Amino acid sequence: MTPILTAFERSPDRGQGLARDMRVRWALEEAGRTCDVRLVSFDALKAPAHLALSPFGQIPTWEEADADGRRLVLFESGAIVLHIAETSPALLPADPNARARAISWLFAALNTLEPPIFDRDMVRILERDQPWFEARLAALEETIARRLAQLAARLGQADWLDGDFSAGDLMMVTVLRRLNGSRLLAEHKTLAAYVARAEARPAFRRAFAAQRAVFDAAD
Amino acid sequence: MTPILTAFERSPDRGQGLARDMRVRWALEEAGRTCDVRLVSFDALKAPAHLALSPFGQIPTWEEADADGRRLVLFESGAIVLHIAETSPALLPADPNARARAISWLFAALNTLEPPIFDRDMVRILERDQPWFEARLAALEETIARRLAQLAARLGQADWLDGDFSAGDLMMVTVLRRLNGSRLLAEHKTLAAYVARAEARPAFRRAFAAQRAVFDAAD
Repeated sequence: MTPILTAFERSPDRGQGLARDMRVRWALEEAGRTCDVRLVSFDALKAPAHLALSPFGQIPTWEEADADGRRLVLFESGAIVLHIAETSPALLPADPNARARAISWLFAALNTLEPPIFDRDMVRILERDQPWFEARLAALEETIARRLAQLAARLGQADWLDGDFSAGDLMMVTVLRRLNGSRLLAEHKTLAAYVARAEARPAFRRAFAAQRAVFDAAD
Repeated sequence: MTPILTAFERSPDRGQGLARDMRVRWALEEAGRTCDVRLVSFDALKAPAHLALSPFGQIPTWEEADADGRRLVLFESGAIVLHIAETSPALLPADPNARARAISWLFAALNTLEPPIFDRDMVRILERDQPWFEARLAALEETIARRLAQLAARLGQADWLDGDFSAGDLMMVTVLRRLNGSRLLAEHKTLAAYVARAEARPAFRRAFAAQRAVFDAAD
């Protein structure tokens, strides 16, 4: 059985690759693996068939069969990327200590960077007409600016966060890409270069093209 | 070398065990392991010595030496709990599929449940005098209520989220505990019972007492 990944039928980001299937597509490309993609409409996210895969009605989900034919269903992009990474030296180093550090970065991307960066996008879309819009956006951008300064301090002049490119960099870049074109990211030239360096990887470009094709076909 | 965990010198939750060192303390107790705890003041979080361990100036951090004496430093509570869980059948099942599913729940706790639940506490503390307070709190509680209904639907009448107790349950309960005493949690009797069942575990009680002793000593 070829693994099956779910993704949005209609990309809310108009093909920019910001939805969370992109990180799984990219991880698969880095690992030299393929999957089938099943597209899901917004309505279908709430249907029992999808909730059986994803308790919170989200994409992506992952279905595969192991060597004994037993079916495995996973949800949460972090868990799926980690599951793929565990079988690929392109995504996690063999050295146990380096591997554990790469996983620290994967969690940092999801838990420390993504919440304020994702909220900023949501506020800009959903709260623009609210009386608190300016104040709330400013507070979020202050938090993001502090996190980016700390990230830039740690990255320094290195290409990647800890040695070779890893699943930690992959996850961090998918989060930072939401800031592409913003002053927040542009103020840190090394971070903007870090994102561009990742986006130039052939595996990223193939994954980006694949999710973009879904948007173009639906347009 | 006994591993070293960092925790707040003065618990902002007054000993309720809501800070993120609690999940590591609990995981260690479930795994039958010990560590030394180094307490850190709020000012020291921003000092170079702590930033060398934690790029974003947070607790907990984890320092250990491997069998060859090489030092390993980890940050992010999710990464530290997973690192501990990987060596303990009390926290992750041996079966690879069940293990991967437990890790899905760990990520769901941190990425899908914790952001709105943590934000609710922050808004109640920091934004009470803001003009948007009522509207923002209502929006967050609506999101949390939806997530809890989905979680309760998946848990059903089971004791734990997927088979035996795992690191996924541990992480979910540390997140849900922020809702103890709230109407949001009380409305789902099975979820309130799930949290109480976890809090009754001897390992939880030992970890809770240990973090509480720090608060009592500082008081």
